[in-house]
Amino acid sequence: MRTIDWIDGHIELVDQTKLPVEFSVHRVSHIDDLISDIQRLAVRGAPALGVAGAMGVALLAHQHQQDPDKVKAEAARLREARPTAVNLSWGVDRALTKLSQGPEAVLNEALTIRDEDIAACISMGLYGADLVRDLVTRDKARIMTICNTGGLATVERGTALGVIQTIFEQGWLEEALPVETRPLLQGSRLTAWELQEMGAPFRLMVDSAGPFLMNRGYADAVFIGADRIAANGDTANKIGSYSLALAAHRAGKPFIVVAPESTIDMNTLNGDAIEIEDRGSTEVNSIQGVQTAPSGTNTLNPAFDVTPHELITAIVTDRRVVRPTRGERLDTIELGPTRTK
Amino acid sequence: MRTIDWIDGHIELVDQTKLPVEFSVHRVSHIDDLISDIQRLAVRGAPALGVAGAMGVALLAHQHQQDPDKVKAEAARLREARPTAVNLSWGVDRALTKLSQGPEAVLNEALTIRDEDIAACISMGLYGADLVRDLVTRDKARIMTICNTGGLATVERGTALGVIQTIFEQGWLEEALPVETRPLLQGSRLTAWELQEMGAPFRLMVDSAGPFLMNRGYADAVFIGADRIAANGDTANKIGSYSLALAAHRAGKPFIVVAPESTIDMNTLNGDAIEIEDRGSTEVNSIQGVQTAPSGTNTLNPAFDVTPHELITAIVTDRRVVRPTRGERLDTIELGPTRTK
Repeated sequence: MRTIDWIDGHIELVDQTKLPVEFSVHRVSHIDDLISDIQRLAVRGAPALGVAGAMGVALLAHQHQQDPDKVKAEAARLREARPTAVNLSWGVDRALTKLSQGPEAVLNEALTIRDEDIAACISMGLYGADLVRDLVTRDKARIMTICNTGGLATVERGTALGVIQTIFEQGWLEEALPVETRPLLQGSRLTAWELQEMGAPFRLMVDSAGPFLMNRGYADAVFIGADRIAANGDTANKIGSYSLALAAHRAGKPFIVVAPESTIDMNTLNGDAIEIEDRGSTEVNSIQGVQTAPSGTNTLNPAFDVTPHELITAIVTDRRVVRPTRGERLDTIELGPTRTK
Repeated sequence: MRTIDWIDGHIELVDQTKLPVEFSVHRVSHIDDLISDIQRLAVRGAPALGVAGAMGVALLAHQHQQDPDKVKAEAARLREARPTAVNLSWGVDRALTKLSQGPEAVLNEALTIRDEDIAACISMGLYGADLVRDLVTRDKARIMTICNTGGLATVERGTALGVIQTIFEQGWLEEALPVETRPLLQGSRLTAWELQEMGAPFRLMVDSAGPFLMNRGYADAVFIGADRIAANGDTANKIGSYSLALAAHRAGKPFIVVAPESTIDMNTLNGDAIEIEDRGSTEVNSIQGVQTAPSGTNTLNPAFDVTPHELITAIVTDRRVVRPTRGERLDTIELGPTRTK
């Protein structure tokens, strides 16, 4: 399954708003539909949005071959569909660099971005699985994870969930242990669905069960993705990651961040420099449209948290493994190859 | 507001299944209605169930004055309405000891149980507020809490939330910080409602935001209730308590358990001896009837967790304050008075 792809001259993408109840592929032939799909989060996740941006430009380049100004104007509109998603504008801009070479060149650039993402996820899976093999003494591994870091956030396979998939394919996954990930429930809606699709054994739990079940020995390691990794290794990720890091630390179990090199931001010195966005009250006071708190309840709703590097056993990227708790640093560990096996 | 009381020859109780959307008092004149209210969790919380049991016997004693065998038979049925709720059977049995003295004696025993609960909560509030005054250096206190430990779980005021109410009434509560408490959302449905009713400032958050906001300095202390306190101070309470304990410990902030003396079980040596009940999949895979995970998803759903005593700054009861992190023990600290001021 690919979350987004180019099929017979159109973009096809999995409509994530319908999961887990319904699996629906949306064929996109017009730029307005793509913009709408991005805005209503039918497609989401930084890598997937990069591909969506580039494929949108390919769509425009084919439809307006004689009018490059029209392509650029429409691409600018696509670029602004989600202003804070840097990968979207990155994908649009990278595809536009090929516009003067014709629509096939633009499409090839979009397909290259797609293939680079697939390759990076395969490489992270291999680096990550080898690391777990070193760190976990049991024959089969039980891996806790949070949010959705699977194929639905990328093109295929994913980051943290990609490592879990690799271990499953290699035959030594005992079970995955996703937490539901309030407020938006990406763990129960998307990760549980992906695990079920791949046929991997898993058990779902509420977020605050994760730390206690670490304490009771239910998991051998925790794997998370990342929104941003600061220069010192402090990692911003979905709210709830910090709780799992505290629990893994106390239980003496590895806590591992999996993200492509592009997630590392050497201009952010440490986690204190990361501003935490508050996403407002609606997500806290209701769930899927059902009111759960009294009307007018004030909230705190941090979208993500920051795990300090001293709680992080390893940062796994598509090019290397860095071990903060062993004193290794992002600015000194050299890049290795993008692995394919 | 009283969660349950005896008014004009009937039991009146707040129907908690309708909160926070609707405040509804249910007048109960027949034992079948009381059994139904207990089973559908219209009334819940150990102390409130003790009073419900005793008042149910009072209702029976008045309605069947000439037929003590009928009273006993119906009381046995009430006793089994929720077999695991020890307080319910305790309340039934205590009221039945007065049956030979006539219906007024039974009613007086039920009212005594009610008044003892109210007095215990007042005393816990005073012991707890004085402790916070000692431990918190800021002029006004910001208190994080979990689940519902307020008047809705007792007759009036509550345990952990009773301390917060006492601090609010004394004029130095900056804000309460309840977490929503998945899976059953007692924090958002009940605690937020109680705080709104008392006019106290508060902000609600999802469970996993609590530990991170401790890390960022949003709270001065954490207060929780208890299902059971083992002889060594290890405390079983709602799932999520352990996460908050880890976070408070790392942030250097007090983590305080508030519960009546009756919650201490000296026959349970430590937390490892406490079996964790798994409440099944429905609560995890859906929220208020809305499906949130794929059909057939397996789950782990521990109803509560255990916080080790070395993470507990203080245990506050209606008769004393015990400080585990200072090496104080439940079997050596003597009981003090039930405080009224």
